[in-house]
Amino acid sequence: MPEFFQLLPPDQARTKFLAEIRASPQPETVPLAEALDRVTFAPVCATAPLPPFTRSTMDGYAVRAQDTFGASSSLPMYLTLAGEVLMGQVPDLELRPGQAALIHTGGMLPRGADAVVQIEVTQKSRDDEVEVLKAVGRGENVLQAGDDVKAGEEVLPAGHWLRPQDLGGLASLGVTPVTVARRPRVAVLATGDEVIPPEAEPRLGQVRDANSYSVGALVAQAGGVALLGGIIPDSFEALKAAAVSALKAADMLVLMAGSSVSVRDITLDVVNELGRPGVLVHGVAIKPGKPTILAVADGKPVIGLPGNPVSAMVSGGLFVTPAIHRLLGFTHPPRAATARATLSHNLESQTGRDDFVPVRLVSRDGALYAEPVFGKSNQIFILVRGDGLVLVPRDANGLSAGAEVEVGLF
Amino acid sequence: MPEFFQLLPPDQARTKFLAEIRASPQPETVPLAEALDRVTFAPVCATAPLPPFTRSTMDGYAVRAQDTFGASSSLPMYLTLAGEVLMGQVPDLELRPGQAALIHTGGMLPRGADAVVQIEVTQKSRDDEVEVLKAVGRGENVLQAGDDVKAGEEVLPAGHWLRPQDLGGLASLGVTPVTVARRPRVAVLATGDEVIPPEAEPRLGQVRDANSYSVGALVAQAGGVALLGGIIPDSFEALKAAAVSALKAADMLVLMAGSSVSVRDITLDVVNELGRPGVLVHGVAIKPGKPTILAVADGKPVIGLPGNPVSAMVSGGLFVTPAIHRLLGFTHPPRAATARATLSHNLESQTGRDDFVPVRLVSRDGALYAEPVFGKSNQIFILVRGDGLVLVPRDANGLSAGAEVEVGLF
Repeated sequence: MPEFFQLLPPDQARTKFLAEIRASPQPETVPLAEALDRVTFAPVCATAPLPPFTRSTMDGYAVRAQDTFGASSSLPMYLTLAGEVLMGQVPDLELRPGQAALIHTGGMLPRGADAVVQIEVTQKSRDDEVEVLKAVGRGENVLQAGDDVKAGEEVLPAGHWLRPQDLGGLASLGVTPVTVARRPRVAVLATGDEVIPPEAEPRLGQVRDANSYSVGALVAQAGGVALLGGIIPDSFEALKAAAVSALKAADMLVLMAGSSVSVRDITLDVVNELGRPGVLVHGVAIKPGKPTILAVADGKPVIGLPGNPVSAMVSGGLFVTPAIHRLLGFTHPPRAATARATLSHNLESQTGRDDFVPVRLVSRDGALYAEPVFGKSNQIFILVRGDGLVLVPRDANGLSAGAEVEVGLF
Repeated sequence: MPEFFQLLPPDQARTKFLAEIRASPQPETVPLAEALDRVTFAPVCATAPLPPFTRSTMDGYAVRAQDTFGASSSLPMYLTLAGEVLMGQVPDLELRPGQAALIHTGGMLPRGADAVVQIEVTQKSRDDEVEVLKAVGRGENVLQAGDDVKAGEEVLPAGHWLRPQDLGGLASLGVTPVTVARRPRVAVLATGDEVIPPEAEPRLGQVRDANSYSVGALVAQAGGVALLGGIIPDSFEALKAAAVSALKAADMLVLMAGSSVSVRDITLDVVNELGRPGVLVHGVAIKPGKPTILAVADGKPVIGLPGNPVSAMVSGGLFVTPAIHRLLGFTHPPRAATARATLSHNLESQTGRDDFVPVRLVSRDGALYAEPVFGKSNQIFILVRGDGLVLVPRDANGLSAGAEVEVGLF
């Protein structure tokens, strides 16, 4: 009797899963200086134009452009110095024909001026006079009010990842504090009679819980808050009680579904009792990561990850991360870092499933090579020794040494 | 009189600058669950082998491999069932010739056993007997003690960026809490008589401080703690007093050196009075970002960034980030995310300097295009509208539309 009746390709599995999640991001207000890597809750619109007034983009002289027409180094135009524009102040002068005013980068253009002559193409002939050696057109070296942002313009959509430059933009518009999507709380439960917390000393036969920490960090990386719920014994009753209570306090639940079939069966039964519609996907056409369970319980995503540490991370990247992004309302998550490299060894693979092979990047003779990290996928340190994953797609039965591959970095 | 006597290429400027920084990372202890994206302070060695005992990697039967030799589906071998290995416990049985014991994935091999037969290639004929349909070799389906990590092995070097799988690895070895490098404190000072805090309402002529927030976030992204020191008026005395006091409380100082030459001159003079050796680089052959000041004051890095928001971020990525990494002792920072795209427009450029052009990534007809974000580099929202930067290298005088480019994503 096969354990899995139908293995879905990962993209189909993900689509089916994400469609059932009830995503309703909640607003949270954070100080601007703490908003890095958060996700906007609502579109942000400018309440005023930027810059708020017409500014010089250069050090030089504010002028009427037409007064400079025809100026050259052999035939300078002489303008009378009407004063200096002080930074941060409205100029107390109005430029009349034939006049110029000293202005600094960012200074406000005085009335009457419509361009700035760069200081490099001027010469100070007398205290009250400046020689212009080059003509400027109207608007030259000037940023008009609203040139950067118009009043009312949507500057950031909802579901936008806040990068350093976005925080600068929000500061310039006075958007502080910022309303971001609250981080989804993701309960993470480990299972296994043999599993103990990392701070405990294992007796013979016991191992420490690694997956709660790697998957918990994956949750944080995706923008969620991991609630580590500890280690649950391998029994239906214990796991069900823990899952029900964890899911009640969280927006999403990740269970380490164990490595043995009997424990995975328990997990499957528990997940099916958590809410509607229950298990959507049981088994994905990937290696490692096949025994993944994707479910939705009354709108909340529930994922059963394989217990194998490599599988848990591969499957977590494919399903845990997008589920958290969906809960955040995160429309355009950042692209993952990748590197192009030459495959150092042949990789065998079966058609019909996506194979993810951990590789190490090695520079040799000026070229970058992707070297498979060999070992059994039960080894926790396979991914620690690796720099990323190479995908052998399901329509290929392997990749040859020397092939150029894209490495998904982690 | 030229403002800059010599423009160094950015890589030479960085090398010269980093060489003078006195990097002595300090240790800090954090709980394992909070160690994501931190950097190891010292090498981490395993105090015990991993796995700590010989484990099954499959559900099946622990056997003596030689008892299965010659087994096939047409000629099964019959083994006597000696019991079951319970998870997390030392098996209370020793396998004798002709015996097998039920074992689950992760279970400890009983004495006498040296391989595991997968359950899929067995058949249960009688309660106390199992038919083996396929031979296994010694060690098959078994992870030996120490196969993943040997006792005493260095599993992570110092200066290693802690990723999710690394936290899993540390958990499995009981390394909790973790000793990481303390985040360098980076004082960030804005300057400008026209600049006001983001929460204030600008009068005509004033603008809000954007750079403190974008550069502060860049500092956080690089692994530092930004100490925003506010906005300093454009005077030598005020700036010097603020810089001296900020640097005393921090490991590094970033000054927004202003956009006008007069303010930059003040910044240069101040930086030169902060400590030895003082200014190392004044002017870098990049656009934007040319008027960058790189200095070291008694071992501490001091950077004067251009006031122009685009320049500040470009220069910050080139110099602020690596300086923080150096203070952290961060030997192999993660590769930045990049994307390959087709350039949509011609880009002109001068030879002799590296041009960084903000671009937007646009998918069209299944291809990815890099579209320059046009505008003046004084516009704060240029980088908000962009997805990354394209480098036009200093030995090129431009790039043609249709060229394949690598976009450094931000």
